[in-house]
Amino acid sequence: MSQPCTKFPGLWKIVAWDEAFFQGRRQEFTAECSDVRACGFQTVRSLRIESGAWAGFEHLGFQGQQFVLERGDYPHWEAWSGSHAYHVERMSSFRPIACANHRDSRMTIFEQENFLGRKGELSDDYPSLPAMGWGSSAVSSFRAHSGAWVCSQFPGYRGFQYILESDRHAGEYKRFREWGSHAQTAQVQSIRRIQQ
Amino acid sequence: MSQPCTKFPGLWKIVAWDEAFFQGRRQEFTAECSDVRACGFQTVRSLRIESGAWAGFEHLGFQGQQFVLERGDYPHWEAWSGSHAYHVERMSSFRPIACANHRDSRMTIFEQENFLGRKGELSDDYPSLPAMGWGSSAVSSFRAHSGAWVCSQFPGYRGFQYILESDRHAGEYKRFREWGSHAQTAQVQSIRRIQQ
Repeated sequence: MSQPCTKFPGLWKIVAWDEAFFQGRRQEFTAECSDVRACGFQTVRSLRIESGAWAGFEHLGFQGQQFVLERGDYPHWEAWSGSHAYHVERMSSFRPIACANHRDSRMTIFEQENFLGRKGELSDDYPSLPAMGWGSSAVSSFRAHSGAWVCSQFPGYRGFQYILESDRHAGEYKRFREWGSHAQTAQVQSIRRIQQ
Repeated sequence: MSQPCTKFPGLWKIVAWDEAFFQGRRQEFTAECSDVRACGFQTVRSLRIESGAWAGFEHLGFQGQQFVLERGDYPHWEAWSGSHAYHVERMSSFRPIACANHRDSRMTIFEQENFLGRKGELSDDYPSLPAMGWGSSAVSSFRAHSGAWVCSQFPGYRGFQYILESDRHAGEYKRFREWGSHAQTAQVQSIRRIQQ
């Protein structure tokens, strides 16, 4: 169901600091980092995305709460955290999102797990799924055909966020436990394309 | 520069509760409310948007921090608050966003105040303005030609949010003090259309 993504060298660059507001130890990364402590960071407290789209993670090894990071400045953890459900003041690992493609992103969402029940075809940004006619406050499975997407718990892209990529899991996310290691609910009220 | 918006009666409905998670006193509104205390609320702690797009405000009289509210469930204040810059656990007034139109939204952004300097024409959602080629982390003035927009301090629609409507101020926002009574900075890194 997915299409391959070309990983251009030089497309990704992130600058990280171990203090908020771009202070303290500074380091540049152009590829994934599964453990910022191996680079002398206790945790990352501010960052700047200079190119490419990235996924940040609460824990080492790309585990825990997920954060979409697109080009721009993030002076403190509140700038990237989408949820107060539990506060995450750290980022311990991150990696590029190879398939992000704002122009060509297609996904099918399903009311039930295992790609069953009512479905919807997406190719745009949806700040409110209910306003687009989706009758439920949940989405139970996803097929990401192209591009990369972020779905959020609340309208307007707030709350817990989960990254869905066409080049991971063959683009197939059968149940919410597969969205990420911290997913506790299938509540999804907004979905958008990720910007490279 | 702006076009008129048709205000259909019956298009807007918000249900508010004075406790989180849809508990306590409950009331429905189909038009603006400039002071929730006049309806027996100390503050609104959870809400459901049943139809239309709404703007929520921290203070009475549509003042203070702004929150875009689109169709869906908001079980607690963290669900609508986009910023930790200062925590706002209350909503004291709200009104419909008459011009929200996801299909037909056009805006011009300017690098400098008073519609001067470099400009950009927008008709889509932009989770990262820098990634779209905008060379600055600030936008200093806006002309909303059609629809209604929300711009945000950080990429991915996080941080302080400001609502820009084609039927208010004739769609013209000349300087950041005009974006809202709490605006402290012209930092804008993401902009999107508001969903009716």
